[in-house]
Amino acid sequence: MKISVIKIGGNVIDHPEKLEEFLDQFAKFPGKKILVHGGGVMASKFGESLGVMPEMVDGRRITDQDTLDIVTMVYAGLINKNIVAKLQARGVNSMGMTGADGNAIQSEKRPVKEIDYGFVGDIKEVNSHLLSYLLQEDIVPVFCAITHDKTGQLLNTNADSIASAIATNLAKKHQVNLYYCFNKSGVLVDERNENSIIPLINEDIYAELRKENVIHSGMIPKLDNAFEALQKGVHHVWIGKAENLILSTKGKLSGTIIEKHRYDLY
Amino acid sequence: MKISVIKIGGNVIDHPEKLEEFLDQFAKFPGKKILVHGGGVMASKFGESLGVMPEMVDGRRITDQDTLDIVTMVYAGLINKNIVAKLQARGVNSMGMTGADGNAIQSEKRPVKEIDYGFVGDIKEVNSHLLSYLLQEDIVPVFCAITHDKTGQLLNTNADSIASAIATNLAKKHQVNLYYCFNKSGVLVDERNENSIIPLINEDIYAELRKENVIHSGMIPKLDNAFEALQKGVHHVWIGKAENLILSTKGKLSGTIIEKHRYDLY
Repeated sequence: MKISVIKIGGNVIDHPEKLEEFLDQFAKFPGKKILVHGGGVMASKFGESLGVMPEMVDGRRITDQDTLDIVTMVYAGLINKNIVAKLQARGVNSMGMTGADGNAIQSEKRPVKEIDYGFVGDIKEVNSHLLSYLLQEDIVPVFCAITHDKTGQLLNTNADSIASAIATNLAKKHQVNLYYCFNKSGVLVDERNENSIIPLINEDIYAELRKENVIHSGMIPKLDNAFEALQKGVHHVWIGKAENLILSTKGKLSGTIIEKHRYDLY
Repeated sequence: MKISVIKIGGNVIDHPEKLEEFLDQFAKFPGKKILVHGGGVMASKFGESLGVMPEMVDGRRITDQDTLDIVTMVYAGLINKNIVAKLQARGVNSMGMTGADGNAIQSEKRPVKEIDYGFVGDIKEVNSHLLSYLLQEDIVPVFCAITHDKTGQLLNTNADSIASAIATNLAKKHQVNLYYCFNKSGVLVDERNENSIIPLINEDIYAELRKENVIHSGMIPKLDNAFEALQKGVHHVWIGKAENLILSTKGKLSGTIIEKHRYDLY
């Protein structure tokens, strides 16, 4: 099977009209597919209305019990089930899931070192048997950023990591592409110019771009993660804006494609 | 397949220690099984903390947009995913679902007559193909009381009705028993005496008990629903306390069994 794993974040989730537009595109996206969504800003806002203030360290949320309850409600309840209902309306037979459902993704609580992140999970295992079956049955899994540790504990888990873990796991048996939708049109030569997209990055180009300091700060971990996924067998990784996702299936310049060696569109 | 559809309500959900005890029993419950849960009190409490007061007419919740969001968060998020994680810890491979997931249960918004119930769904169709597959794969579906209308709208739906609709639908091809856990030990001769359980009710006994006014008020719709399920092919209906559920599988007096004609334990 050819499988696309597509991740969206707050910049889509937090804007109802953008979400509708994205879901239109996602519904038309060809082939077998899995959606992974975050939802950070909505959870923070909602927590604040309950008097639970978000506590962030280095851009990462500290997840105490109240925060875990809130993200479970907002991610697995409100956001996930509305996305599923909206996809059903578009004829996409989707199934909303956490990692606990069908034991799809097992993780372990992040060990406490300098920082205690609380109920945050690092992924250990993906149940690709279940996912393969759902995809074969034309069911589209829709994952929120919650996993479990198999001892009854839900764990808040980074949505990028979930997308990557699912993709690399399925890549053992299938041809898998990974799509990260974010707030830029792709990896840019000039951050202020959305038209300066670098269409293709492979290992050689990446080394060059880092040397010239074109790629720096926040883009480095994103690209490191992308290359790690490629190392683990993912066919290609796409980074761009959600609204350009469908263009990427039509061979048009829509974002940045990251691949190990050669250029090869979907 | 022999399938048991088991419904629990607020009297289990709202008490952490009772929920743990119930899940122990549910995990040991033999054969293929589906869990359906409500969660009314927790949603009301949570709504109140957000300034959304529950509005009830004749014991039924009026579901406006804010209330729908709250029940989606509490039922499909907090309660459902914690139950799934707790079952996984007990070795039960469960899958938490709303009616939107896999298009499992499609409903329609209740028409406005004297009362506008808001976003409340009346069930139209159950996707027994999906449920049969999950059960065959030894996956235990765990349903919360949310369905959808296939046009993108989530709908608050009575958990008893969900249990009954699933059971009657699966009964077309399988032998299905339906278990309603509630706050009494069964149908009682004397409401104040939990030991006065009527072990068996069939149509003849029911007619007799109503004539003698032993069964009255709130028990009548419960039993009418049970007999309707039997008419539609359900093998037997059990009513009792969650903590006695497992006894019912051991041929012990544990609650009231409702059947059309003859006594036949699981």
